[in-house]
Amino acid sequence: MTLGLSQARAVASATLDPFRLFPTERRSRDLAAALYDGVKELPIISPHGHTDPRWFAENEPFADPAQLFIVPDHYVFRMLFSQGIDLAELGVPRADGNLTETDSRKIWRVFAENYHLFRATPSRTWLDHSFHDLFGWTERLSGDNADQAYDHIADCLARPEFRPRALFERFNIEVISTTESPLDDLKWHAMIRDSDWNGRVITAYRPDAVVDPDVDGFAANIEAFGALAAEDATTWHGYLNAHRNRRAYFKSFGATSSDHGHPNARTENLSATTASELFQKALKGTCTAEEADVFRGHMLTEMARMSLEDGLVLQIHPGSFRNHSGPILQAFGRDKGFDIPTRTDYVRALRPLLEAVGLEKDLSVILFTLDETAYARELAPLAGVYPVLKLGPPWWFYDSPEGMRRFREMTTETAGFYNTVGFNDDTRAFCSIPARHDVARRVDCAYLASLVTSGRLDEDEAHEVAYDLTYRLAKQAYRL
Amino acid sequence: MTLGLSQARAVASATLDPFRLFPTERRSRDLAAALYDGVKELPIISPHGHTDPRWFAENEPFADPAQLFIVPDHYVFRMLFSQGIDLAELGVPRADGNLTETDSRKIWRVFAENYHLFRATPSRTWLDHSFHDLFGWTERLSGDNADQAYDHIADCLARPEFRPRALFERFNIEVISTTESPLDDLKWHAMIRDSDWNGRVITAYRPDAVVDPDVDGFAANIEAFGALAAEDATTWHGYLNAHRNRRAYFKSFGATSSDHGHPNARTENLSATTASELFQKALKGTCTAEEADVFRGHMLTEMARMSLEDGLVLQIHPGSFRNHSGPILQAFGRDKGFDIPTRTDYVRALRPLLEAVGLEKDLSVILFTLDETAYARELAPLAGVYPVLKLGPPWWFYDSPEGMRRFREMTTETAGFYNTVGFNDDTRAFCSIPARHDVARRVDCAYLASLVTSGRLDEDEAHEVAYDLTYRLAKQAYRL
Amino acid sequence: MTLGLSQARAVASATLDPFRLFPTERRSRDLAAALYDGVKELPIISPHGHTDPRWFAENEPFADPAQLFIVPDHYVFRMLFSQGIDLAELGVPRADGNLTETDSRKIWRVFAENYHLFRATPSRTWLDHSFHDLFGWTERLSGDNADQAYDHIADCLARPEFRPRALFERFNIEVISTTESPLDDLKWHAMIRDSDWNGRVITAYRPDAVVDPDVDGFAANIEAFGALAAEDATTWHGYLNAHRNRRAYFKSFGATSSDHGHPNARTENLSATTASELFQKALKGTCTAEEADVFRGHMLTEMARMSLEDGLVLQIHPGSFRNHSGPILQAFGRDKGFDIPTRTDYVRALRPLLEAVGLEKDLSVILFTLDETAYARELAPLAGVYPVLKLGPPWWFYDSPEGMRRFREMTTETAGFYNTVGFNDDTRAFCSIPARHDVARRVDCAYLASLVTSGRLDEDEAHEVAYDLTYRLAKQAYRL
Repeated sequence: MTLGLSQARAVASATLDPFRLFPTERRSRDLAAALYDGVKELPIISPHGHTDPRWFAENEPFADPAQLFIVPDHYVFRMLFSQGIDLAELGVPRADGNLTETDSRKIWRVFAENYHLFRATPSRTWLDHSFHDLFGWTERLSGDNADQAYDHIADCLARPEFRPRALFERFNIEVISTTESPLDDLKWHAMIRDSDWNGRVITAYRPDAVVDPDVDGFAANIEAFGALAAEDATTWHGYLNAHRNRRAYFKSFGATSSDHGHPNARTENLSATTASELFQKALKGTCTAEEADVFRGHMLTEMARMSLEDGLVLQIHPGSFRNHSGPILQAFGRDKGFDIPTRTDYVRALRPLLEAVGLEKDLSVILFTLDETAYARELAPLAGVYPVLKLGPPWWFYDSPEGMRRFREMTTETAGFYNTVGFNDDTRAFCSIPARHDVARRVDCAYLASLVTSGRLDEDEAHEVAYDLTYRLAKQAYRL
Repeated sequence: MTLGLSQARAVASATLDPFRLFPTERRSRDLAAALYDGVKELPIISPHGHTDPRWFAENEPFADPAQLFIVPDHYVFRMLFSQGIDLAELGVPRADGNLTETDSRKIWRVFAENYHLFRATPSRTWLDHSFHDLFGWTERLSGDNADQAYDHIADCLARPEFRPRALFERFNIEVISTTESPLDDLKWHAMIRDSDWNGRVITAYRPDAVVDPDVDGFAANIEAFGALAAEDATTWHGYLNAHRNRRAYFKSFGATSSDHGHPNARTENLSATTASELFQKALKGTCTAEEADVFRGHMLTEMARMSLEDGLVLQIHPGSFRNHSGPILQAFGRDKGFDIPTRTDYVRALRPLLEAVGLEKDLSVILFTLDETAYARELAPLAGVYPVLKLGPPWWFYDSPEGMRRFREMTTETAGFYNTVGFNDDTRAFCSIPARHDVARRVDCAYLASLVTSGRLDEDEAHEVAYDLTYRLAKQAYRL
Repeated sequence: MTLGLSQARAVASATLDPFRLFPTERRSRDLAAALYDGVKELPIISPHGHTDPRWFAENEPFADPAQLFIVPDHYVFRMLFSQGIDLAELGVPRADGNLTETDSRKIWRVFAENYHLFRATPSRTWLDHSFHDLFGWTERLSGDNADQAYDHIADCLARPEFRPRALFERFNIEVISTTESPLDDLKWHAMIRDSDWNGRVITAYRPDAVVDPDVDGFAANIEAFGALAAEDATTWHGYLNAHRNRRAYFKSFGATSSDHGHPNARTENLSATTASELFQKALKGTCTAEEADVFRGHMLTEMARMSLEDGLVLQIHPGSFRNHSGPILQAFGRDKGFDIPTRTDYVRALRPLLEAVGLEKDLSVILFTLDETAYARELAPLAGVYPVLKLGPPWWFYDSPEGMRRFREMTTETAGFYNTVGFNDDTRAFCSIPARHDVARRVDCAYLASLVTSGRLDEDEAHEVAYDLTYRLAKQAYRL
């Protein structure tokens, strides 16, 4: 038997380039490799993400390759959808009750046959990394080897060393944060806490469902919120106390941060009377779009004030136009790859919050952006002067080699390294976590090497900064 | 006789660097060269441009070097004008009846004496390429050799092998699209069709003159439009039918696309009643600026619906502030280098069209931009999920090495390669076409080489992608 | 005695890399070095900056290292402040009468202990350059050597060769411009003129205090303005004449330019009647925010018209949100690092001025930006066609290696080199001037080298352009 073309290719791809993502010029490459050598084995700090605490609580095996890699990952299925493949063919669950594919092997085949669509994307990078390093599958995926790859990975998943807790340990995760709504009872976190397993899985307080008047069922959410907090959350005073109560509850499960996903970066600082009136309108569902925006903006300032009381780090993730396609929202629901970044302004938007609490030394506000044009123009200058502000790592479409490189090039000269907070993987895709951190470490080391070889940083400093960016700053910024 | 400085310089410039636009690091350079070797001889697919079909119909010689390279090229004369040289001195035709230079040799001398102004611009790149490869003029142009260069090129132009059809064949053009208004009778295209020449010159449907209420003479245009289409185009129903009719007529001359040059990317999806009322206002010239904008936006959705019927690919070229200088518009008319890009938003602007037809598999909408900030933030995320959307290549000021590089760096990670459509030269400058495609091939190969040497793509894949970007995707996306 | 870690590091940092900021690939690096060799000794042309003319008038020694490097430099103290160090601890003078640190050695120690915060920032680059080349201090600054470094630099400052005029000569400054308000009597400039010293220190006309209705004390400023100009500046006619008069006075002290620091790039071209009415409102303090903006915008057009009369070059520095923090403004006053760039539009904003005077050959308007997204999209296309427009060098947070590189990459292809104006240091930090010009020369040479090695520019041309960017264009553009 002779090797076919796709097999020849697969052989060419059998190893991950040990120098990948480093500069190609020899001196810079070698220095990047040396810097990377010093950080590649450091534990993973994952202070912001979307893994499911149930995995660690129950420690059941992951179902199969398609359910692990394709069905839940909007990075993956959006690319396939953009090239004319139906979401239902990819097994994406439907909101409208119609049928979706349930044969995971068929789903996997469609994915494998279209693997070329991911060329030069971060998804490809981490998928290859995961197949290779985690599962020991070293051929390049294609339609030809789809079934073999499926079987290989499925076999692995059935083994105890591929259960969530074992992977957690294999990934060398020191701490990971999930994200929960205040309406969540944190039962999985309780189950983890009460287990004999010592993995550090913490939660983060994400109150959008009880802060955003535009959320479906806002009033009902507030009712439930009050019930959980044992407060009358339908009064402004009780509502704020309910937040305090739930934040404390989240802290008891390790939370060190809150997180806020708003359509823009607007903040407001209203009088209690005005805020209270708006809140009542929100409960009645009579807020205009502008009033809902004002209310969300004001709540960021309220959250910042509570952070001053309880020490939670405040994260702002603004600027996504959610669920851009109405038909897809109706048929498949939220989070289906149709969240599109929009232009986001920070300078005027953040000012009310900054006027209220911007100079406080005990408050930490971490800013994210989906609008890279704000990095050099607005975010680095703001973080380079306001004590409360730090810059989060590249987010979403930008947690990629080019995105990470541009982030450093656009922020470092004005904000330095020490107004940044290390890396977040921000992912639902558990197997991607080591690959994502590896990419971040490589890109940072490449950047540091280029600073050294162009005479902008001393080599010993580069080693120290590599350590800081990989490990120390994330722990410090998130108070871990 | 000793060599003067300018002659010594000219010798230094006598050859084009065979490795130009490749990375300088050896391994990446050699790989880029190998990738380029595989695509450099591929035929040119030119699915969008502004060459004059009359050239190919009549096949007359081009007049002289100045009329070929300077007088019709706003990239060239705008740069000279910016440094204080009058447009009239450059022979640019006037709209106000005043005199303009008609001595082509004098025009050429002014250009040659100021050739240093074009250093490191794309104009310089393609001019040098064209002088060297097409005309065999291998000295760097300057005031000193202006007359010699003029004579040399003028001699060439008089020869049969420099006539339009001969050049078309020499350039290895498989297909080229011109752009015409629905008001055009396509007589030159008919003459080409009826000739014994087999060059594939097709048209594209550019209906701005009958879609934009702000165009001078809109109502008269609609009259003429109806006459050509044998429809009463002054009714909404008849107007739409006239579009259908003229699109079919354009298709009979090979058209596979329509093209729309709007001031922004706004789309609307009005009821027939509202659209019809706006159309009547437009005919009466009573639209407000906002209403005209709404009408243009709605017509994009109408055109998309017709594309679903007839298969034409829809191209959107938004965001140019046309004829920025009133005095120049008055003295010299349109297209005199005063079209300036403006900030352009896509996420909200395109939504009405996308809600109407964004998930259709039989529709293809190609987006262009003059606002690069939208590439990573808006356009790649949109094209990376909506089946109808594809990203056009860098346009206008960005069809340049840096512009092309940034395009790939900002779009590939989110949209991949397969939501892009290969290269367009988009030019009126016939002699620049081989050079422009050569630059695009080189820059894409350089980018692909850097992906391989940084471990982000396998070498065999890079060869395949190079072929796709050069040839296959343009044919596929434009249905050629 | 054995070397401690910090001493070992200091040794590692004992020399400045002679190839710093050049490409790392050998051929490009060597070419960059050759280009740099040709320009590194050229005199400094500093046509825009904020040094204090009193230094050169009195020629007194600089006080001490902290007063020289830290206290007056908002780049330096803003970074320390962002990491929780009080401005008062850094000796920043207060506006509210409270205490600030006056012990310069203590201030210096805080700075030295936190020197790592400046890693990879332009401040670090020029501080290292200055310590090393100017003061002969070759260890890397740290808490450990803070006192030694302080003493070393303080000793230097006491010597005659470190007095302002001696440094001016040592820096090889051919001409430097300061910036003064029309309300300034230019007494220090008079003292310089009347001295026996021949250093060329000129002024620039910066009329914000009498042009911006939002300035505190606007009406009082106009009174003082009229008094200095011997005009009744409270009438529109007299006000314009007062400008003419003061511009002439500034010209008698060498001024060749005016400078305008507006919140945006808006221009207007009002009728005299409307302008006069707005001016009367401004005097009464009854302008709305919009009216104040219109007035500022109109004054740019008036200044442009006066430039046509008197030949001053018009500089526009738009887009900074000044004094973003109210509490800091109250406690410490203006210019405390809280000026934040904002998104800035040019295409529509500049049009009224350009319609009025944009095609004049005897007018020169130099545009600066804090919004890099405008470079390729708006500024290069505008400067690449309007004869009056030139692009100023990267400003403020962008006078950095990455900022300078992006500037060239984003403007050259459309505007060429000859619509740019060389380098401005734009600094208050006298000792940073040689370092800043050195960085600009290095980055430009690196860029030119990369153009040559990628086949986009001939080597002899690169040498010529290096000279132009370093020396000739600044003199030409500023009419020096």
